[in-house]
Amino acid sequence: MNYKVIGLFIARILSFEALFLTPALGISVFNKEYPAAKGFLISMGIILLLAGALYLICRGAPSAFRAKEGLACVGVSWIVLSLLGCLPFYLSGEIPSYIDALFEMVSGFTTTGASVVPNVEVLSKGMLYWRSFSHWLGGMGVLVFLLAFIPASGSVHLLRAESPGPVVSKLVPKMKNSALLLYGMYIILSVLNLIFLLLGGMPLFDALCTMFGTAGTGGFGIKADSMAGYSPYLQNVTTVFMLLFGVNFGCYYLLILRRFKSFFKDEELRLYFGIVFASVAVIAINIYNIYGDIWETLRHSAFQVASIITTTGFATADFNLWPTLSKGILLCLMLVGACAGSTGGGIKCIRLLLILKGIRKSIQQVMSPRKVVAVRTNDTPVDDSTLSGVNSYLAAYAVILVGSFLLISIDGFSVETNVSAVVSCFNNIGPGLDLVGPVGNYSEFGILSKLVLIIDMLAGRLEIFPILALLSVSFKKSH
Amino acid sequence: MNYKVIGLFIARILSFEALFLTPALGISVFNKEYPAAKGFLISMGIILLLAGALYLICRGAPSAFRAKEGLACVGVSWIVLSLLGCLPFYLSGEIPSYIDALFEMVSGFTTTGASVVPNVEVLSKGMLYWRSFSHWLGGMGVLVFLLAFIPASGSVHLLRAESPGPVVSKLVPKMKNSALLLYGMYIILSVLNLIFLLLGGMPLFDALCTMFGTAGTGGFGIKADSMAGYSPYLQNVTTVFMLLFGVNFGCYYLLILRRFKSFFKDEELRLYFGIVFASVAVIAINIYNIYGDIWETLRHSAFQVASIITTTGFATADFNLWPTLSKGILLCLMLVGACAGSTGGGIKCIRLLLILKGIRKSIQQVMSPRKVVAVRTNDTPVDDSTLSGVNSYLAAYAVILVGSFLLISIDGFSVETNVSAVVSCFNNIGPGLDLVGPVGNYSEFGILSKLVLIIDMLAGRLEIFPILALLSVSFKKSH
Repeated sequence: MNYKVIGLFIARILSFEALFLTPALGISVFNKEYPAAKGFLISMGIILLLAGALYLICRGAPSAFRAKEGLACVGVSWIVLSLLGCLPFYLSGEIPSYIDALFEMVSGFTTTGASVVPNVEVLSKGMLYWRSFSHWLGGMGVLVFLLAFIPASGSVHLLRAESPGPVVSKLVPKMKNSALLLYGMYIILSVLNLIFLLLGGMPLFDALCTMFGTAGTGGFGIKADSMAGYSPYLQNVTTVFMLLFGVNFGCYYLLILRRFKSFFKDEELRLYFGIVFASVAVIAINIYNIYGDIWETLRHSAFQVASIITTTGFATADFNLWPTLSKGILLCLMLVGACAGSTGGGIKCIRLLLILKGIRKSIQQVMSPRKVVAVRTNDTPVDDSTLSGVNSYLAAYAVILVGSFLLISIDGFSVETNVSAVVSCFNNIGPGLDLVGPVGNYSEFGILSKLVLIIDMLAGRLEIFPILALLSVSFKKSH
Repeated sequence: MNYKVIGLFIARILSFEALFLTPALGISVFNKEYPAAKGFLISMGIILLLAGALYLICRGAPSAFRAKEGLACVGVSWIVLSLLGCLPFYLSGEIPSYIDALFEMVSGFTTTGASVVPNVEVLSKGMLYWRSFSHWLGGMGVLVFLLAFIPASGSVHLLRAESPGPVVSKLVPKMKNSALLLYGMYIILSVLNLIFLLLGGMPLFDALCTMFGTAGTGGFGIKADSMAGYSPYLQNVTTVFMLLFGVNFGCYYLLILRRFKSFFKDEELRLYFGIVFASVAVIAINIYNIYGDIWETLRHSAFQVASIITTTGFATADFNLWPTLSKGILLCLMLVGACAGSTGGGIKCIRLLLILKGIRKSIQQVMSPRKVVAVRTNDTPVDDSTLSGVNSYLAAYAVILVGSFLLISIDGFSVETNVSAVVSCFNNIGPGLDLVGPVGNYSEFGILSKLVLIIDMLAGRLEIFPILALLSVSFKKSH
């Protein structure tokens, strides 16, 4: 492993982080929030100093990545970005505990949206902006952003480690152009979302933060009641855009290429919207008694389903008070997650599809051991290494879930709290059930539990293996 | 598919079921429980009539099985045995609802031990005996029993479908001798267990039923408080024998062959006892405050751990009242289960071992894509089809768990109740948490939920694929 390659990469990404902090600094100064502005300034200083030092130490390193270094870069970058990105929260005193500040930052970058702040309305505007903006950055991937600017051979290893989904499909042959294209579509959709929110009369600051949370499928709100206080129009706009940001961006590229037939026949897309419609319908029937009005029922049902399946985590209703069936469905949607290649988290619909097809294949093979059965998606055979990759992903996923559940059980909260907290953080959703429900927060957990949940959020966002690889390296001092 | 092969097999197995009912009938007559005796007699008549009719229709069928027929035989046998075996409960009026009687019978044969009877002490002795005896039959496998008596080529397909674990290892080359050997060891261990219980002063009837529940890792008790009322000696004997019945019987064969070194180096065995000791220790520390006495704490901790990991389900304490960490550990042990090739259920330690090694392999491959990594257990490389079989088992397992959880959520009980009920039934344990905790029972669930749990118990005992295959056949009318 060439550590200088990694160091140089980190130096570059840190200078970008300092750059990204400037709008938040501007907002603090504009709103005369001087302690916050001071926090931002000192943090930017520290970050730039570190970046400079790293650059001096590691300059001259080759810019080519091997798989191992790609993995390490991704894992280390996300950790360093979070460790330093949370400094403003801590230095401004708005989140007095460093571990809490780190939790909040990791929750932001991983687009989880789980908060340790009991009442977000006391935070300064600069901090609220930085919190929400971290969703937008983390959604499409901090490193994909870099790829659009840094020429590097072997960068496919970076993309592979950071992009959600079992298969990395380059949209166009050149990695750099793919990254630019992805960010282009991301920015266009984000701007559209912003315009629709402004048309509904939402103030600019609220609209920006809401858009960041929606686009990154993050879910940090700027109000104590998340989205419940906004008009039905604004809630519906958010429902639609959450669902749109949960679609594989490759599908949008199909639309740009005018390949409408392939778009509408995409199996993952069909499964995704199939699950959404079925869940909205069943939950609406289940909760109709609570609201009494069919449109209000549908609005709440659709909002919560969209928010959970895309792993955003906004809320318009306290679904913790809904009947068990609805809560159960939401808990399952947390696991499913959005489409691969979107900004959403979770297991991803394509993996669910491959898992289901894999089970069908196993049944067929048990029944007729000599028959050769192939799994196909979108009329293309799926090769065995992808299938076994999906299965070992699921295995690692299950083991981490169970292990984390045990560790946070030490704090002694209810089984429902612990299960849903782990599922919610690991799938980058935000709210869970019971203590960590939509009106609750994660502040009551102990330090160990917060650390476990921080690792879960990172492992979930980076799809497990970069983080597991880092952990295993630190255990056995690999060279 | 040759249906006559299956029919003839069912006819044979039904005549055995009638035979197995005779001791229960005898006990009823001896205790002058005439309604129960009548129930047994009528049931035996119906079973023999059906067996005769099937025999007449299907006689002359070949006795060789193909994989497909083996699967179907196993699935259909277990269902038919349960559908008819529950008749005594229903006809005697002791369990007035047929679906409840079926639930109780399936719970017996699958060695689950989940009960719908609020107070078991009102049941007649004959019924209590039949209930517990069904554990003993189901533990080693009803069909393995037949294999010892029926000569049939292709019977490996039967054994494969019924035996717990990812790999079927014939102990000796001839299938018939393997089956005899397995039952021989099973009977010897059972008799030892009985003797130790009798030495502790337990009445013969209690000792027989307790032994059946222990040997089959079933867990139906004959007292309302399960094992809490018996002396510490009897509880400790049961702890030890539960653990012994959770060991792979192949390991005992190693002992018979005097291959002690292989025995003590068996990786599954080490993992199994490692998990047991670690869990007992952590739970003991966690619950020490409740009991205050170190030996009493250890006794309760060890009993519950042994009972849950072997999927037996006896209880000496209401662990539903224990702190969340202990409850969480028990919930995880429910998933782990005992060793393959034992009478216990669950995912099985060997699968857990393979899953963990598979994850390590994936990490190594992500880090060095070109390296060839092999998974080994007990110094033998594991072939890829076994590994992918384990993974697709886990996938099917997770999908069924989630689906069942959703379906029983319709009844509206707590999330904790629903999760633990599904986990407990699917892994053939018995008690869960909250409503279905050690002092609760399954009677309050609706008919749909009971049916779902019945299918879960069968799918869990037969390790999913025979039941999934049956369901898929009935969906698409395969030929």
